[in-house]
Amino acid sequence: MRTLTVDLGERSYPIIIGRGLLNTAAEYLLQQSISNQSSLLLVTDDQVASLHLAPVLKSLEEAGFSVTVSIVKSGEQSKSLAVFEEVMTKAIEAGLDRNSAVLALGGGVVGDLAGFVAATYMRGIRFVQLPTTILAHDSSVGGKVAVNHPLAKNMIGAFHQPELVLYDVDTLKTLPDREVRAGYSEMIKHGLIWDASFAAWCLAHVTELLELQPEALAYGLEQGCAVKAMVVSQDERENGLRAILNLGHTIGHAIEAVAGYGEYVHGEAIAIGMIGSALIAVARGRDIQVYEDTRRLLKAFGLPVSLSPHVDTEQLIGALLHDKKFKNNKIVFVLPITVGQVEIVSDISLDEVRNAIGQLKREAI
Amino acid sequence: MRTLTVDLGERSYPIIIGRGLLNTAAEYLLQQSISNQSSLLLVTDDQVASLHLAPVLKSLEEAGFSVTVSIVKSGEQSKSLAVFEEVMTKAIEAGLDRNSAVLALGGGVVGDLAGFVAATYMRGIRFVQLPTTILAHDSSVGGKVAVNHPLAKNMIGAFHQPELVLYDVDTLKTLPDREVRAGYSEMIKHGLIWDASFAAWCLAHVTELLELQPEALAYGLEQGCAVKAMVVSQDERENGLRAILNLGHTIGHAIEAVAGYGEYVHGEAIAIGMIGSALIAVARGRDIQVYEDTRRLLKAFGLPVSLSPHVDTEQLIGALLHDKKFKNNKIVFVLPITVGQVEIVSDISLDEVRNAIGQLKREAI
Ligand SMILES: NC(=O)c1ccc[n+]([C@@H]2O[C@H](COP(=O)([O-])OP(=O)(O)OC[C@H]3O[C@@H](n4cnc5c(N)ncnc54)[C@H](O)[C@@H]3O)[C@@H](O)[C@H]2O)c1
Ligand SMILES: NC(=O)c1ccc[n+]([C@@H]2O[C@H](COP(=O)([O-])OP(=O)(O)OC[C@H]3O[C@@H](n4cnc5c(N)ncnc54)[C@H](O)[C@@H]3O)[C@@H](O)[C@H]2O)c1
Ligand SMILES: [Zn+2]
Ligand SMILES: [Zn+2]
Repeated sequence: MRTLTVDLGERSYPIIIGRGLLNTAAEYLLQQSISNQSSLLLVTDDQVASLHLAPVLKSLEEAGFSVTVSIVKSGEQSKSLAVFEEVMTKAIEAGLDRNSAVLALGGGVVGDLAGFVAATYMRGIRFVQLPTTILAHDSSVGGKVAVNHPLAKNMIGAFHQPELVLYDVDTLKTLPDREVRAGYSEMIKHGLIWDASFAAWCLAHVTELLELQPEALAYGLEQGCAVKAMVVSQDERENGLRAILNLGHTIGHAIEAVAGYGEYVHGEAIAIGMIGSALIAVARGRDIQVYEDTRRLLKAFGLPVSLSPHVDTEQLIGALLHDKKFKNNKIVFVLPITVGQVEIVSDISLDEVRNAIGQLKREAI
Repeated sequence: MRTLTVDLGERSYPIIIGRGLLNTAAEYLLQQSISNQSSLLLVTDDQVASLHLAPVLKSLEEAGFSVTVSIVKSGEQSKSLAVFEEVMTKAIEAGLDRNSAVLALGGGVVGDLAGFVAATYMRGIRFVQLPTTILAHDSSVGGKVAVNHPLAKNMIGAFHQPELVLYDVDTLKTLPDREVRAGYSEMIKHGLIWDASFAAWCLAHVTELLELQPEALAYGLEQGCAVKAMVVSQDERENGLRAILNLGHTIGHAIEAVAGYGEYVHGEAIAIGMIGSALIAVARGRDIQVYEDTRRLLKAFGLPVSLSPHVDTEQLIGALLHDKKFKNNKIVFVLPITVGQVEIVSDISLDEVRNAIGQLKREAI
C-alpha cells in the first residue's frame, strides 16, 4: 500500500493506492470522519457496477452506512447536464444532508460528474473518489470537476477537492485493452511535462505496464499521482503552474467535442493533442527531437499519433475558440521544450493550429 | 451615495447604494478592474429589461465593453436547471473567457441564476450584482447562488461572491406594489434576527417605506445590507452564525416548493415562515409577545401572516424533509427569542411543525 498526500492546507487529503482496498472501503471512510449517521450517494456507471460495485456496497452496509446507488450509462455522454440532473434528483430523494458524502466509483467520467454533484448539492458536500481506471490516476486527483456542454468540454464545473482518493488497483484487471492504453496517455503526459526519467521509465516498461504487472503498475500510478499532486498543491486554482497539466488538452478537447464525445476516448484525443503541441513547438523552432520522442512514447503504448481526416479542421478551430484556453483573441498553449519540460505560450495564432492539424491528418512533418 | 464593505479578506467587495448609478455602471466596473478587453454577459429578466436595461447597456458600450445580453422570463420559474443551461449556452456562444464577468441586472431570481452561471462557467468567473428589487438588498449580498430543483428550493448551487454590488435605488420606483411589500419581508427579517431598534424603526416608517421615500428607503436598505454583510463576513460558508439568516426560510422554502414557485413570491413565503417560527417558539414556552410583535410588523407592511388552507400540510412536511436544514432526522430551525434576537434549535420534531402549520392555516394561536 502506498500513500501520498495532496497538500492543500485544511483541504489536504490522502491518495491511497493498493490491492483489495474496496473490500474495506468503509474503514477508510470512517478514518476520514465520514460518519454512518448520514446517507451516502454512490455514483457509478453500468459497466463498473457489474464488475466492482458489490464489494464496496458490502463493506459500507456492514459498517452501518445507508447507501443509495446512482448508476449512469458508461461513457463520456454521461458527463452532461441532463445526467447531472438525474443524479441530483437521486441525491435529493435519498435525503442526503450536509453531513453526507458522494462517492464516485469509476473512471474520470463518473469522477467528474459525481464531483460536480458533490460540489453543488446544497452548495457543496463531501466527496470521495474510488477510481477504477488508469486514466483516473489523473482525474481523481486535484478537484477539477465538471460536465460537458455540447459546444465545449468541461465547460460547466467547479473546483471541489475530494476527502480521499482510494485507489484499488485490483479493479484495473477488468479494464478493456483500449482503456488501458488510453489511461497511460495521461501517465505519459506527467512524464513529458515534469519528469524525463519517469518518461524514460515508461518507455522501458511498456510491456509490464500494458500487461498490468502489479509492481510496474503501482509504481507508474504512484509517480503519475505524485506529479499531479505536486502541481495541484502549488496552484490549486490554475493561476499559473497548473496549466502545464493541459499539455495536449487544447487540441484534445476540440477533438472530443467535434467527434462527438465518443469516437475518441479522452486519453486518445489528448495523445493526438500532445503530438499537435509538439508539431507547433517544432514549427516555432524547437528541435524535431521533441516531436520524435513524444511520438515514439505514445506509439509504444498503441496510442493514436495522427488524426482521422474526416474530423473537420474548421470545426476543430470553432471548438477551440470556445475552449477555456482562448483568451483575449490569442490561444494559450502548453508547448514542449524537451521531454520533461514544457512552457506556457499565450500567443499562438489560429494559423499555427491549422497547420498542426493539417500535419496531424497527413501524419507528416 | 452610501458604501458598505463585505469583509472577506481577498474576496471583500463594496456595496454601493445610490441614485442613478446604472447610468455610469461602466465606471464602477473599471474601478473593480473588470476590463473592457473581455466580453461581458448581462443576465436580466424580460420585465426588468424593458425598464432598466437601456442605461446600463449605454454606459457599458460607450466605455468600450462588448456585452451579450441574456433575457430570461420574469419569475421564480427561471431559477431552474433548464434556464441555467440556456444562459450557459449564451455565455459560450458569446465567447466569454476567464477574464470575463457575468452581470445580474434584476431581483433575487436573476441574481441567484446568473451567480450560479458565474460560479460554474469554466469553473468560476467574475460576477457583478446590479440589484433592482428591495428584496435584493438581501439576495445580492453574501455569495449564495443557486437554482431550484422541482423537489426543493436552492438545492443546486454554490458560494460565489460578487466583485461588486451596485444598487441603483432609482430602479425601485417601477416595482409593482406586491414586490415592494415582499422586499420588505427580508428587511424586517434583518431587524428581527439582529437589531430590535431597526425593527422598531421599520414599524415607525411603514408609510415612508411603502411610498419609497428616498431617505427612508436608502436608510432601510443600508441597514438591511449592513446586517447581512456583518453576518456573512463572520461566517461566509454557514458553519454557524450565518444560519440565523434562515429565519422563516424552512417553512418558507417548503411553501414555495409545494405551491409551485409562483403562487407566493419569496418574500411572502418567508413572512408566513417567520410567523410559523414564532408559533413554534411560543409553543416551546417563549412569551407570546414575540409572535404578536412579528405579526404586527409583517401585517403593517401588508405581508401575509397566515397560510392558504389549500396548501397541503403533508406535502409541506415532505418538502421540509428535502430541505437543507434537515439533519440526522431532526429539523434545524431558527426560532425567535424576542424581537432582535434568535436562536438556532436543532431538535424540532415534525409534529411541532405540523402544529404550527395548522395554526398558520387557522390564523389562530
Ligand atoms: N478532473 C480531471 O482533472 C480530469 C483529468 C483527466 C481526465 N478527466 C476526464 O476523465 C474522463 C476520462 O476518464 P476515463 O478514461 O477514466 O473514462 P471513463 O470513466 O469513461 O472510463 C472508461 C471506460 O472504462 C469503463 N471502466 C471503468 N473502470 C473499469 C474497470 N475497472 N473495468 C472495466 N471497465 C471499466 C467505463 O465504464 C468506461 O466505459 C474524461 O471525461 C476527461 O475529461 C478529468
Ligand atoms: N442568494 C441569497 O442570499 C438570497 C436571499 C434572499 C432571497 N433569495 C432569492 O431571491 C429570489 C427572490 O428575489 P426577488 O423578490 O427580487 O424576485 P425577482 O427577481 O423574481 O423579482 C420580483 C419581480 O419583480 C420584477 N422586477 C424586478 N425589478 C423590477 C423593477 N425595478 N421594476 C419592476 N419590476 C421589477 C421581476 O421581473 C419579478 O417579476 C428568490 O428566488 C429567493 O430564493 C436569495
Ligand atoms: Zn486529461
Ligand atoms: Zn430569503
